[in-house]
Amino acid sequence: MSKAGLEDVVAATSSICDVDGTQGRLIYRGYDIHELAENSTFEEVVYLLWNGRLPTKTELETLKGALASSRPISEEVVKAMKAMPKDALPMEVVRTATSLLSMYDKEAEDAQPAANNRKAIRLTAQLPTIVAYWDLIRNGKDVVAPMKDGSLAENFLYMLSGGKKPDEVSVRSLDIALILHADHELNASTFAARVAAATLTDIYSAAVAGICALKGPLHGGANQEVIKMLIEIDSLDKVDAFVSNIFAEHKKISGFGHRVYRTEDPRASHLRKMSEELGKRLGQNKWFDMSRRIEERVKTEKGLNANVDFYSASVYYMLGIKEDLYTPIFAISRMSGWTAHVLEQYANNRLIRPRAEYTGERDLKYVAIDKR
Amino acid sequence: MSKAGLEDVVAATSSICDVDGTQGRLIYRGYDIHELAENSTFEEVVYLLWNGRLPTKTELETLKGALASSRPISEEVVKAMKAMPKDALPMEVVRTATSLLSMYDKEAEDAQPAANNRKAIRLTAQLPTIVAYWDLIRNGKDVVAPMKDGSLAENFLYMLSGGKKPDEVSVRSLDIALILHADHELNASTFAARVAAATLTDIYSAAVAGICALKGPLHGGANQEVIKMLIEIDSLDKVDAFVSNIFAEHKKISGFGHRVYRTEDPRASHLRKMSEELGKRLGQNKWFDMSRRIEERVKTEKGLNANVDFYSASVYYMLGIKEDLYTPIFAISRMSGWTAHVLEQYANNRLIRPRAEYTGERDLKYVAIDKR
Repeated sequence: MSKAGLEDVVAATSSICDVDGTQGRLIYRGYDIHELAENSTFEEVVYLLWNGRLPTKTELETLKGALASSRPISEEVVKAMKAMPKDALPMEVVRTATSLLSMYDKEAEDAQPAANNRKAIRLTAQLPTIVAYWDLIRNGKDVVAPMKDGSLAENFLYMLSGGKKPDEVSVRSLDIALILHADHELNASTFAARVAAATLTDIYSAAVAGICALKGPLHGGANQEVIKMLIEIDSLDKVDAFVSNIFAEHKKISGFGHRVYRTEDPRASHLRKMSEELGKRLGQNKWFDMSRRIEERVKTEKGLNANVDFYSASVYYMLGIKEDLYTPIFAISRMSGWTAHVLEQYANNRLIRPRAEYTGERDLKYVAIDKR
Repeated sequence: MSKAGLEDVVAATSSICDVDGTQGRLIYRGYDIHELAENSTFEEVVYLLWNGRLPTKTELETLKGALASSRPISEEVVKAMKAMPKDALPMEVVRTATSLLSMYDKEAEDAQPAANNRKAIRLTAQLPTIVAYWDLIRNGKDVVAPMKDGSLAENFLYMLSGGKKPDEVSVRSLDIALILHADHELNASTFAARVAAATLTDIYSAAVAGICALKGPLHGGANQEVIKMLIEIDSLDKVDAFVSNIFAEHKKISGFGHRVYRTEDPRASHLRKMSEELGKRLGQNKWFDMSRRIEERVKTEKGLNANVDFYSASVYYMLGIKEDLYTPIFAISRMSGWTAHVLEQYANNRLIRPRAEYTGERDLKYVAIDKR
């Protein structure tokens, strides 16, 4: 018997992340996501996901130093990106440039755990450089060298702006968003990365497999769909007509519902709050107000809860980030989770190879082509 | 309860391919692999996998024409390949160049079935060009335009040789090898492609996810490991000592055993025969003789059967193909299966998102970094 989409099928044991869909809880390595979103930083969470415990001050400084010094990407990769068509989708570029990185990493094929740990650092450090550089390159701007210090969030916003120091509220908002997106158990992209890793393919290939899956509109691509919708609606008074129309056409609204959560997505509550606060601070309440009204209607009439993608859309928009970079930012954050899962898969590997239930014909005899 | 590696877990229904591990049978769309290997051509099999039935003469000619005319790749992709480091692994190049292709395909984001069918043709037609071009480029040779006619196998050998017409036995041998590798139900790379496709990511991304998984030594990478071993052993009289040594060290020999088959891999019998015949024809019996002796010992002492990778190694070697192109050739063939599965996934989609059994800690409280 086939369980469509492997719903509720346990495909692996893991000590990285637990999603309790009934109670609406998300746990990274024993810590509730609320504890982490309120108190920690993305770098602390990265350490936690990779090492299974929170770092000491020295351990955190060491990791931050390693991430910061790993930010520059090969000049050859920058050249290759400059040769790409300017209208290439950021996720196409992220997929291709990440695939290129391995060619310039002398440790790419070194399968020892210590080498894989170093590669996880490089992948996590270099993805923001790829995303920011692409936005500069496609807009005909010069790329800027990454900051030699500062957090991943701060440096990303710095590079993205072409070299302006970002304000603290923006940095902390993005940092929390990165914490919330860092891991989510066997979501489709992490599962794709683990399926690849279980053939003992290299960690770059496993990460690329994750990127390939994240690109889909049923996964990371959803937050971009949400902001497209909000921009199309444009004002609070037009929300009801828009939503009624979608319902009448039996279409779906992106950013709602989740395979695992039967309650509110615990990540959505943080992003909702952040969306409201950023709106007030910037005098741009409309994105939050529209979102809130859509959420009320979908909840009341369809019984669906907002998921992580719904409020991240307005948050990123108010941070001034271009719509088609939302999914790449998801990838920047999730790279930490993908690599944590890949390292866990390598440490106790078994090929992931399920079966299909065959529904086709049997015992057909080959007929010469002239007689068909 | 977790089934390690999803062994025997049904993850999808499919009418494309059936693997009967107990009886050692492999079926594509109702036809036994023996029927197809003996009577058909790779292009017929590609049509069969995509369309569910064997083509008429006109349908086959149309497909062959479409595949042939789709062989040239964008000049920009060739330029990008020329800029890659000459020691890049062919599978890194295949992964990256396939990822690049989508940027030059105006239909890349068109999710309509007809567009996806056309993209499946382009992916299948262009992968041989990428592989052959890379071998020419890394050896400092000029790339040659693909043949405007002929089979995929003939054109691939033609391009790989830098423009020499290959002999008929080589073409037919490669053609049969391509038929045998075209699909294999939910093997790891096809499963990775379907996991990606189930997020409704584009077909290029799904194909790249397949490539990422195929690269691993527990999957497509195995045939390369086999030839490395045969070259290392070098002569029949050294086989026994080599094998005894491997057994004494409790190491594994690549090319044996299979997750699904409990019998002989039905593909191995064809490749064994081909290996023997090519050896006789070329006066190079040693590769077959060594392989046969290794097979006898592994079978007798470990109870493991040779799989598809074991005899494909000596076949490709005698066809004069460089060792690190064996896995890319596997990809060339399997692209037809990946795309067939991706199209099937799109046609009746459900997100593939299993669960993990969480084995980590719970209810930890965040402690300020100074107090850790």
